[in-house]
Amino acid sequence: MTTETKRPGLLRKAPENFLNPQLLREIHEKGLDEERRRFLRQSFLVASAATAVSSASKSFANEMGAGGSGDSAAGDPNILVLPSHSTTLGKPVTQAGYGQPSRHENAILKRISPGLTRTQEASASFTPLQALFGIITPNGLHFERHHQGWHDVAPDTHRLMIHGLVKTPMIFTMDDLMRLPSVSRIHFLECGANTAMEWGHPSVPTVQYTHGMLSCCEFTGVPLSVLLDYCGYDKQQSRFILAEGADGASLTRTIPIEHALDDVLVAWGMNGEMLRPENGYPLRLVVPGMQGVSWVKWLRRIKVGDQPWGTKDESIQYIDLMPDGSHRQYTSIQECKSVITSPSGGQQLLSKGMFNITGLAWSGRGKIKKVDVSVDGGRNWRSARLEGPIQNKALTRFNIDWVWDGSEVILQSRAVDETGYVQPGIEQLRKVRGSRSTYHNNAIQSWQINASGEVLNVQAY
Amino acid sequence: MTTETKRPGLLRKAPENFLNPQLLREIHEKGLDEERRRFLRQSFLVASAATAVSSASKSFANEMGAGGSGDSAAGDPNILVLPSHSTTLGKPVTQAGYGQPSRHENAILKRISPGLTRTQEASASFTPLQALFGIITPNGLHFERHHQGWHDVAPDTHRLMIHGLVKTPMIFTMDDLMRLPSVSRIHFLECGANTAMEWGHPSVPTVQYTHGMLSCCEFTGVPLSVLLDYCGYDKQQSRFILAEGADGASLTRTIPIEHALDDVLVAWGMNGEMLRPENGYPLRLVVPGMQGVSWVKWLRRIKVGDQPWGTKDESIQYIDLMPDGSHRQYTSIQECKSVITSPSGGQQLLSKGMFNITGLAWSGRGKIKKVDVSVDGGRNWRSARLEGPIQNKALTRFNIDWVWDGSEVILQSRAVDETGYVQPGIEQLRKVRGSRSTYHNNAIQSWQINASGEVLNVQAY
Repeated sequence: MTTETKRPGLLRKAPENFLNPQLLREIHEKGLDEERRRFLRQSFLVASAATAVSSASKSFANEMGAGGSGDSAAGDPNILVLPSHSTTLGKPVTQAGYGQPSRHENAILKRISPGLTRTQEASASFTPLQALFGIITPNGLHFERHHQGWHDVAPDTHRLMIHGLVKTPMIFTMDDLMRLPSVSRIHFLECGANTAMEWGHPSVPTVQYTHGMLSCCEFTGVPLSVLLDYCGYDKQQSRFILAEGADGASLTRTIPIEHALDDVLVAWGMNGEMLRPENGYPLRLVVPGMQGVSWVKWLRRIKVGDQPWGTKDESIQYIDLMPDGSHRQYTSIQECKSVITSPSGGQQLLSKGMFNITGLAWSGRGKIKKVDVSVDGGRNWRSARLEGPIQNKALTRFNIDWVWDGSEVILQSRAVDETGYVQPGIEQLRKVRGSRSTYHNNAIQSWQINASGEVLNVQAY
Repeated sequence: MTTETKRPGLLRKAPENFLNPQLLREIHEKGLDEERRRFLRQSFLVASAATAVSSASKSFANEMGAGGSGDSAAGDPNILVLPSHSTTLGKPVTQAGYGQPSRHENAILKRISPGLTRTQEASASFTPLQALFGIITPNGLHFERHHQGWHDVAPDTHRLMIHGLVKTPMIFTMDDLMRLPSVSRIHFLECGANTAMEWGHPSVPTVQYTHGMLSCCEFTGVPLSVLLDYCGYDKQQSRFILAEGADGASLTRTIPIEHALDDVLVAWGMNGEMLRPENGYPLRLVVPGMQGVSWVKWLRRIKVGDQPWGTKDESIQYIDLMPDGSHRQYTSIQECKSVITSPSGGQQLLSKGMFNITGLAWSGRGKIKKVDVSVDGGRNWRSARLEGPIQNKALTRFNIDWVWDGSEVILQSRAVDETGYVQPGIEQLRKVRGSRSTYHNNAIQSWQINASGEVLNVQAY
């Protein structure tokens, strides 16, 4: 559980509002500060005059070769020293392969939270949200949560059975399914136990472990409504479906028929390619807005019925323990939630000055309407910029400029969805839900930045 | 250059319009055909009664464990035989790693087109569009086009210089840039030489090679307009920028200042993570709508000027050879275009019946308005369903149902963008541009399906 990133770094004496024309004018009038001038010179100082002339000539040969009017920089031996990759032949194109991240990014990994579970087959591996941008989660960094481990299931022999309250029970091959009318949609996926460790006191240091059972992908598949229509489901009696996975746990979940007929997909595609084995290859259920356990992986069976099944996976897990000791059942929609991903716990601000505060917001009930950000522990709030297009039941990226003056501060984000629901503070949530629960913690996350620039997981507001 | 996929496979006797309620009713009234019933029985036939009972008991234990009302299927020994992955412990969660595709997908790779270039450092590697879904191109399958090979450039020492007609020339570190206000946007990226082999007669068999220098990613970075403002670009005299890469080719491109100030990004993020080395890590220019060569990789320098530079990369490449032997200059916008990705060349239809025809459409001038599909070589056209959200200068996925009757047919797609521009047929394009050109071929692609179900690259219309 180490800190994987030190981003963002330093930009000295940046203006408070970077996009403010007045401030920009002031900078230009005053010029750069001396420190930056020195930095500029040092960075590009040449080893020797001979190297400089040779490098500069090579570098600017293009520009001057065909009608360019010359370049004053090329005549300045202090401006350029070329690294080896600018003067050598690079690697050939990939002959037949699947590309990998840069070796410089080899610390950006999905990771387990040590000690979280007794076995690693019934466990979780977390997405490094602190190092990600935009809303798409790369498949290689998608979180994992298995109940009895994962398998690389062969698609040729995989089958999906649909039965129960249907006129015609059917069994589909992957080829069958992939010939059907498919749709592609971007949705978030969050484990119902995401942020589970934060019900009591803050116990994990980074956003990878507080919120990393969260992803957002473009899924492709056939709407479940099409398959249920095809099999002739009983429109009078059907109230629920049961979805079952082909893993050893035979994981099963009950889903209300209204939800199943709404926007649920039987999906094989994830971010353009086939699902990854850890994420249910070759077939999983996509249940937009609902907790991850209902997105049954390695999907092999759907049964239509007239009552909830209450299977083992529904009776003892993913239900909320209330303050009076009772359990709520079937609260499977992921309520509106947000988190600042940078700066976030375990990161280090290397200097005062401007930072882009960035994070993610989402709601299982629709689109994100607004995200407010506080840098003073919840006393004042400013609205962040939302990156578009804002989509239904999908992650929404927010950004907001901020200047750190070097004092101790607490950063928070608070999302509002299109239903008007406002993400609660942790104290507000505890008043209703207590502090012994595991699931469905959508409280506001607080990051404290201390005077040395360290970012810490704390609770406030 | 082999065929990597045989998808889609077979769904016997599917109705013409799968979503038509009347047809669905007919199917349900008539029941499934005998062949499907036999298939269903065979697929799930048990090896022995003992196995069946044991497997069935295990499989349905969940469902019957906690309040379920039992399940008739569990009592039917003919319905179930469980594969080993359903009865064994799976693999543990990833401890610290970066996930990979299924071993069953190991033929889905970016690939070179053998013999295309004399060296593999100045060459291209193509995206397997025939196997992809939706609009997001997985980073591992993103096409490559290098002029002097690729390098895995160290971000700590990488610099971006902005100079020329600016009040304050500046040099930025990656840390500097990543503290600035960033945006995330989904855009397509197409090499100007995509579909270059199709100006004469069809010469490559699959969509990977006809259209595979095409991708669509979510990019994150700082708007170039912010950086130019910051450096105080000369608003009176500035007409063009020059962008230069840090590769050995020092690839340089001129971009009109209006375009540079519009939606160009200095980007580090690609589909949520840092750019891949082959795609410009740690920094590249994103120039929405413009041909790929202008999206300078390993971006190290931007110069503001008052006239186009006409560098070597602009004087001899990426310009159009016209029928009269002259060259057009600076036609760098990728015009409206589309292609059916499945069924497509090299695939094989395994049976008559319903198929989902799917493909991609895009325009460098804005959003896609419409995609029409013909299955009779351009005589009749039907409008395809467009997957949303439809975004500016991004790929748009289209789908349309079709029933193959076993006869020889020609499939085509024709896109229209929001400016009203209609994608031309190849003959129409040749009338203006001739057939000796290399770049900017946006003609309608034709796939012929012969009576045996083979899909071939042909030219028609």
